[in-house]
Amino acid sequence: MNYKMIRYVLSLVLRLEAALMLLPCVFALIFRETQGLYYVVAALICLMVGAVLSSKKPKNFDIYNKDGFVTVALAWLLLSALGALPFVLTGEIPNYIDALFEIVSGFTTTGASILFQVESLSHTSLFWRSFSHWIGGMGVLVFLLIMMPGQTGSRMNLMKAESPGPSVSKFVPRVKENAKILYTIYLGLTLLELILLLLTRMNWFDAICISVGTAGTGGFGVLSSSCGDYTALQQWIITVFMIAFGVNFSFYYLILCKKLKSAVKMQEIQGYFFIILAAIALLVWNNRVVIPGFGENLRAAAFQVGSIITTTGFSTVDFNNWPELSKMILLMLMLIGACAGSTGGGIKVSRIILMIKTVRKEIQSIAHPRAVKKIKMDGQVVEHEVIRTLNVYIITYLIIFGISLLLISFDEFNLETNFSAVAATLNNIGPGLGLVGPISNYAFFSPISKIVLIIDMLAGRLELFPILLLMLPSTWRNK
Amino acid sequence: MNYKMIRYVLSLVLRLEAALMLLPCVFALIFRETQGLYYVVAALICLMVGAVLSSKKPKNFDIYNKDGFVTVALAWLLLSALGALPFVLTGEIPNYIDALFEIVSGFTTTGASILFQVESLSHTSLFWRSFSHWIGGMGVLVFLLIMMPGQTGSRMNLMKAESPGPSVSKFVPRVKENAKILYTIYLGLTLLELILLLLTRMNWFDAICISVGTAGTGGFGVLSSSCGDYTALQQWIITVFMIAFGVNFSFYYLILCKKLKSAVKMQEIQGYFFIILAAIALLVWNNRVVIPGFGENLRAAAFQVGSIITTTGFSTVDFNNWPELSKMILLMLMLIGACAGSTGGGIKVSRIILMIKTVRKEIQSIAHPRAVKKIKMDGQVVEHEVIRTLNVYIITYLIIFGISLLLISFDEFNLETNFSAVAATLNNIGPGLGLVGPISNYAFFSPISKIVLIIDMLAGRLELFPILLLMLPSTWRNK
Repeated sequence: MNYKMIRYVLSLVLRLEAALMLLPCVFALIFRETQGLYYVVAALICLMVGAVLSSKKPKNFDIYNKDGFVTVALAWLLLSALGALPFVLTGEIPNYIDALFEIVSGFTTTGASILFQVESLSHTSLFWRSFSHWIGGMGVLVFLLIMMPGQTGSRMNLMKAESPGPSVSKFVPRVKENAKILYTIYLGLTLLELILLLLTRMNWFDAICISVGTAGTGGFGVLSSSCGDYTALQQWIITVFMIAFGVNFSFYYLILCKKLKSAVKMQEIQGYFFIILAAIALLVWNNRVVIPGFGENLRAAAFQVGSIITTTGFSTVDFNNWPELSKMILLMLMLIGACAGSTGGGIKVSRIILMIKTVRKEIQSIAHPRAVKKIKMDGQVVEHEVIRTLNVYIITYLIIFGISLLLISFDEFNLETNFSAVAATLNNIGPGLGLVGPISNYAFFSPISKIVLIIDMLAGRLELFPILLLMLPSTWRNK
Repeated sequence: MNYKMIRYVLSLVLRLEAALMLLPCVFALIFRETQGLYYVVAALICLMVGAVLSSKKPKNFDIYNKDGFVTVALAWLLLSALGALPFVLTGEIPNYIDALFEIVSGFTTTGASILFQVESLSHTSLFWRSFSHWIGGMGVLVFLLIMMPGQTGSRMNLMKAESPGPSVSKFVPRVKENAKILYTIYLGLTLLELILLLLTRMNWFDAICISVGTAGTGGFGVLSSSCGDYTALQQWIITVFMIAFGVNFSFYYLILCKKLKSAVKMQEIQGYFFIILAAIALLVWNNRVVIPGFGENLRAAAFQVGSIITTTGFSTVDFNNWPELSKMILLMLMLIGACAGSTGGGIKVSRIILMIKTVRKEIQSIAHPRAVKKIKMDGQVVEHEVIRTLNVYIITYLIIFGISLLLISFDEFNLETNFSAVAATLNNIGPGLGLVGPISNYAFFSPISKIVLIIDMLAGRLELFPILLLMLPSTWRNK
């Protein structure tokens, strides 16, 4: 491994984090909160650790596949370890594991909290919490790629390891351009939501935090009621933008290139909207007794479906009290997740589509053994390696899910709580069902369970393998 | 497809079923129960339907891969459809769907019941219920293979489709010999258990029903308390035999050939016993407060672990009242299941081992991309096709699990009930958790849910694909 280069990238990440930590200070000045000082201290610590890691550019910029995975995993761990500092320093979350849980939940865009009353936080920390979603949503390293030196191959290896989804769709051959386009769409959509929310006269601080939280498909709100106290119009705006940020960004790129036909024909987009509409219809039908008015029923269903399938995790109602079928539908949406190439988590719609196609092909090949069938997606043959990687991903996912479930069961909470807690963290959603429902939090878990869930959140955000690679002893042996 | 041959095999199956239905009549004579007459009527109906299907041997005995799958699926459907008749005719289970549920649960060795009080059944029907496990455990077609004409290839295609487990281990090249050896081991072990139970002075009728139920890893008992009212010694005997019937039968064959070393070195066997011991240890530790005495605690843990991992489904205690960790462990054992090549169901230990090896290989290949690694099992390289089939199996399993879960959720029972009901039927276990716990039954589900669970039981027993193949329209188109 190119340790010098890895250390250099990590120090860049920390310098970037130091800069990002100064943003909350702006809010500290506006609201005259002393907590801002601690953010300055935390930023200085980031710079110091960064300086210790690496002081000068390495000569060799090459990052191979493995190095890319290791760098990304280490970057996220470091980012989280230091990102938790402000919460501890300000005394707002005195326990370090809790603070780590909160910031990992932020960076991974999970939105699962250990706080009972978010209103008790300073505006400075509330913004840092929500902003962490925006940072993590698109990926810190993707951002660094825009400025970083090095070869396309090295950049590609970093991007591959950090991007959510089965494959990085190459809009343009140059990764740098690619990252720029992604961040432009990301920033543009965030600003659009912010402007719309401000037009509805939402408090400007709430509007900023909700917009960055929606963009990252995060889910940290600034009120204990999440989005329950906003007006119907505001809830609809948030619904639309949650769903929009769960869309594969290639879709927007195709629209920008005026290739509307190709955009609309994307099978993942079609599947994504089909699932959303079907889920909303089922929920509206099933909740007709619990939520009397049709308009209110539809709004609650649309908001919750948009929030859960995109793995955002905002809520307007306590869906824990919904009928069992509705809860089961939400649980399934948790597992399905958003589109690949979006900021959302979960297994991803494209993987689900490929799974169904795999099974169909298998049955057909038993029925007609001589007919050679290939799996196609968007008119193109899906390569064997993609299918193989998908299979390994699913199996790895199941094993991590199973082990996590077993470990947190030692806390003796019920199946619904445990199952949905693992689903909600591994898929980066936030709230689950049972004791971790939308009006509850994760504070009651034991420290060991919290660490398990922290690892799940990181594993889920980085598509499992980077984190697993760190745990393999042979990764650290240089051959 | 060779329709003539398929019809011929089906008529053979029905003739066999007619003969098997006369066995309960023996018990009717002994206990002087009039229900026996209805079994004669049902046997005659089987013969008639068999005669309508096919009256003479076809000239062409070839059964190809697809035909094998279709034949097996149809045979099991027909066997169940007519096997349910006695329950309806005697009026003991008047509703046909309930009767079908009960007999499918029997043949698939699930052991999930819709009966509130099994004691209210006649001895004749109690025996038919338990005996159906023994018939289904090794497979009806495997039995027919011993007597059937045709080529080895055709036999192999039938056996492949009916045997539980990822691959039919070929003891000997000739399938006929193979089937004979399997049935000899099966019968021998069943008789051994019966003799041991009789030596402990168990009521002879109970001993017969429990022995055939254990052998098929079924789970229907003759008492509402399942095995809770038997003595400690009797429970230990049943425990040992449940675990023995979950062992890959290749193990016994190797021992019979005096290849003890190869037998003990089988990785699946090692994994199977490791999981059993680990689960028992965890349960004993976790239940130390609920069950005070160590001996009693150990016996309850061993019995329940043996019963669940082998997918038998007998119980001695209501494990629904155990602590949450214990219930989670049992739920995981339900999914893991027994060894391939045994009468047990579930995903199978060998598949779990291959899954773990697949993930390990994937991480290693990221860490060391140039090192070409092959997955090995018992010292031999696992062929690519085996891994591919495993992956497709897991994905198919997940999709069937998900769809079933969604469909039965319309009944609005809780997550624990729904999840464990699907797990317990798709893996052919029997009792689940929550409302379908060991002292409960499946009677309360709606007819649609019962049909879903019936399909799950059949799909689980026949390793998913035969049943799915029947549902594919193109299977029925001759090209």
